[in-house]
Amino acid sequence: MSKKIPHRFYLTEDQMPKQWYNLRADMKEQPDPMLNPGTLQPVTAKDLYPVFCEKLANQEMDATTRYVDIPEEIQEFYKMYRPSPLIRAYHLEKALGTPAKIYYKFEGNNTSGSHKLNSAIAQAYYAKEQGLAGLTTETGAGQWGTALAEACAYYNLPLTVFMVKVSYEQKPFRKAVIHTFDADIIPSPSMTTNAGRSILEKNPTTGGSLGCAISEAVEKAVTTPGYRYVLGSVLNQVLLHQSIIGLETKMAMDILEEYPDIVIGCAGGGSNLGGLIAPYMQDKLLGKASPRIIAVEPASCPSFTRGRYVYDFCDTGRVTPLARMYTLGSSFMPSANHAGGLRYHGMSPILSKLYHDGYMEAIAVEQTKVFEAATFFAKQETILPAPESAHAIKAAMDEALKCKETGESKTILFGLTGTGYFDMTAYNSYLDGSMTDYIPSDEDLQKGFDELPRIPGIQ
Amino acid sequence: MSKKIPHRFYLTEDQMPKQWYNLRADMKEQPDPMLNPGTLQPVTAKDLYPVFCEKLANQEMDATTRYVDIPEEIQEFYKMYRPSPLIRAYHLEKALGTPAKIYYKFEGNNTSGSHKLNSAIAQAYYAKEQGLAGLTTETGAGQWGTALAEACAYYNLPLTVFMVKVSYEQKPFRKAVIHTFDADIIPSPSMTTNAGRSILEKNPTTGGSLGCAISEAVEKAVTTPGYRYVLGSVLNQVLLHQSIIGLETKMAMDILEEYPDIVIGCAGGGSNLGGLIAPYMQDKLLGKASPRIIAVEPASCPSFTRGRYVYDFCDTGRVTPLARMYTLGSSFMPSANHAGGLRYHGMSPILSKLYHDGYMEAIAVEQTKVFEAATFFAKQETILPAPESAHAIKAAMDEALKCKETGESKTILFGLTGTGYFDMTAYNSYLDGSMTDYIPSDEDLQKGFDELPRIPGIQ
Repeated sequence: MSKKIPHRFYLTEDQMPKQWYNLRADMKEQPDPMLNPGTLQPVTAKDLYPVFCEKLANQEMDATTRYVDIPEEIQEFYKMYRPSPLIRAYHLEKALGTPAKIYYKFEGNNTSGSHKLNSAIAQAYYAKEQGLAGLTTETGAGQWGTALAEACAYYNLPLTVFMVKVSYEQKPFRKAVIHTFDADIIPSPSMTTNAGRSILEKNPTTGGSLGCAISEAVEKAVTTPGYRYVLGSVLNQVLLHQSIIGLETKMAMDILEEYPDIVIGCAGGGSNLGGLIAPYMQDKLLGKASPRIIAVEPASCPSFTRGRYVYDFCDTGRVTPLARMYTLGSSFMPSANHAGGLRYHGMSPILSKLYHDGYMEAIAVEQTKVFEAATFFAKQETILPAPESAHAIKAAMDEALKCKETGESKTILFGLTGTGYFDMTAYNSYLDGSMTDYIPSDEDLQKGFDELPRIPGIQ
Repeated sequence: MSKKIPHRFYLTEDQMPKQWYNLRADMKEQPDPMLNPGTLQPVTAKDLYPVFCEKLANQEMDATTRYVDIPEEIQEFYKMYRPSPLIRAYHLEKALGTPAKIYYKFEGNNTSGSHKLNSAIAQAYYAKEQGLAGLTTETGAGQWGTALAEACAYYNLPLTVFMVKVSYEQKPFRKAVIHTFDADIIPSPSMTTNAGRSILEKNPTTGGSLGCAISEAVEKAVTTPGYRYVLGSVLNQVLLHQSIIGLETKMAMDILEEYPDIVIGCAGGGSNLGGLIAPYMQDKLLGKASPRIIAVEPASCPSFTRGRYVYDFCDTGRVTPLARMYTLGSSFMPSANHAGGLRYHGMSPILSKLYHDGYMEAIAVEQTKVFEAATFFAKQETILPAPESAHAIKAAMDEALKCKETGESKTILFGLTGTGYFDMTAYNSYLDGSMTDYIPSDEDLQKGFDELPRIPGIQ
């Protein structure tokens, strides 16, 4: 007799995790170290201090501390919007006619609209603690910029957001939310930095990219006294903070006496995926269980499925350290018709290593299929998903339909990272039939690979 | 030693109310009956059948059934987004430096963005059960239209939404969400109905009003075979469905061993307010407790505080029955500079009667003050409120600041009905300083009163 599973399950406040989980502590092989692009030597925490807040730089380098205490102030902030619900998709299951059990962890019920707030408040807290004068960052679709603006407003910490120009122009309401939380926004590339001016000189009409915006935000941070730079994905520290997603999920599923056969997350830089899968990957690394873990990325920006596992810059302006990761090349920009976020050229080095070592799978999906899944899901489950999150929905629905064919009652877990309220332009283009798909040709991708850095003795 | 109060408190699924509460069953004096505008005789349920779904018409007239079973299918739907959290505003309290305890019931965490879904799913369910071919409705700010579109999509029930033209033009993304859920949207006034054509003839450039849109939606319903009309506020049936808000709140506060000294809700047509206060008003009617109950309305549309308690049409086209309520006259339209919803000319007859009989208070607030409170709240509590909801925030903050002066530790409860993600144009005008306030002059209001219906022997 199995336990009665509610539609929405919330941990109590007392059950909320008090520590983050550092996946690296259980990895048999570590990701290759970041390299200083000048010396080609491994970067140390101290090397990062001019760019990152010190405690965050230390977290970035720490591969051994398995559990990291969440500072009490951050726990207090988390309690304003966490725990997030673990939802059993009864209505979606019924509509699909599948014997599979579908669960999703929903991170969209906060004003930032996504999981990004989990790391934003941590990064703002450490910056405040260090007495910094302000922060800089970049944002693409705008979820990270909104989350960090919320976190900085809470601490009265000045913030400058470099927003990818095409988003800046297409999403006036995202800008308005960020303004409500007092942050400055600069469309990127801009004339306010050397990196921006140089990119604009080569390509005056560019709509920008995350890689460009990172270059500008880093430059602004290192040239403004008391400022540091923060990033919402890709980095080890961000995956650490996002482990709260997976820890809550696992605790909730344990209470419900459930364990996923398949764990699915969308993947851009890897922050949500890395957070959601953390405790399940731990089980896998420790040989305790062997769930399938699937990363879902857009076919138009396929870093896992068609990228190379090499050292690359994290930004377009080539000012950051080199990281070994799955990458399409830091000069890669997704096609202008790509609406759905997840447009970063690289991928979390931790996830890249785990994928390379065979601990997880990856698939790429086309955007019209993603929006088809998103609208179907919305009508069954009443939640309008972010396009990014809908990549995971699409994959989860496909797995559930396979179960329908085979008659298997698998337990499928996916991450619903956010809501799509600021993505209605993209939904409109899907609904009116003007949305198209784009799959880069091998020649398109080769251009990005041709500009990968050459590193004597390494690549 | 008082109980430890979590930041967010959720009932379990098993604790969710299985019945709605019908406030009229405990009222010592009933609201005056609706009148047929032709015969001036009290309307019967059967009179309403051509317009309303039968079970909803019956609920509209039922003043005696104290508790109404919530059909199981509606309970199942509720479980997708309910229970909503009862939140202790620890961070707001701290920022205000008040000894008051502030609680709010947050209804915004669903895709409709507000409490409106509570009644929308009920109305769609009864329509489906009756085998109707489709529904019509109107929407102003768009929350009701979105909620009903979600509910109708769930039941594959065709829906036509008449959207107040000024909102239709200012809120393209609201439209897009409604389209995602397959509903048709017509800007009102339109040329598709006699009511719309007649209004446009008199005033070709009008931006429309809820009153106009109601006229068109009713006409479309009664002239389309198998169609009925549904309304998202004002009506007794809507207050019945919305009682779920108050019932959940009271059960949660009972568990936390708390009881409010003051209950505050924003008031447009009264659906949220009537729902939130229902069980507390019951206590007051039965002499069990005497919390202060405060309705908060916009100074630009002050039906409680400056309206008349008389019979009036529910719509501008004068096709609906007459209801006795606080009204500014069905021809009243709020100033174009009014951004914050709550723009209906009348008020729930139930709430009107209770206010008239002294069971509750009402105040009117100006919109720049409302947005000031909204942005302050957002920075402390991380939730960007709907402008409508921010009326209640403003009043709650003022009461908390009074407690700071007097040193009293009152318990304040307010309803946070929704989120402001589709209201960023209004937020922008507040942030850039272009937002202005408008308080209608006595002469302005007199124009609406002059057009009130004359009813021999009554008014």
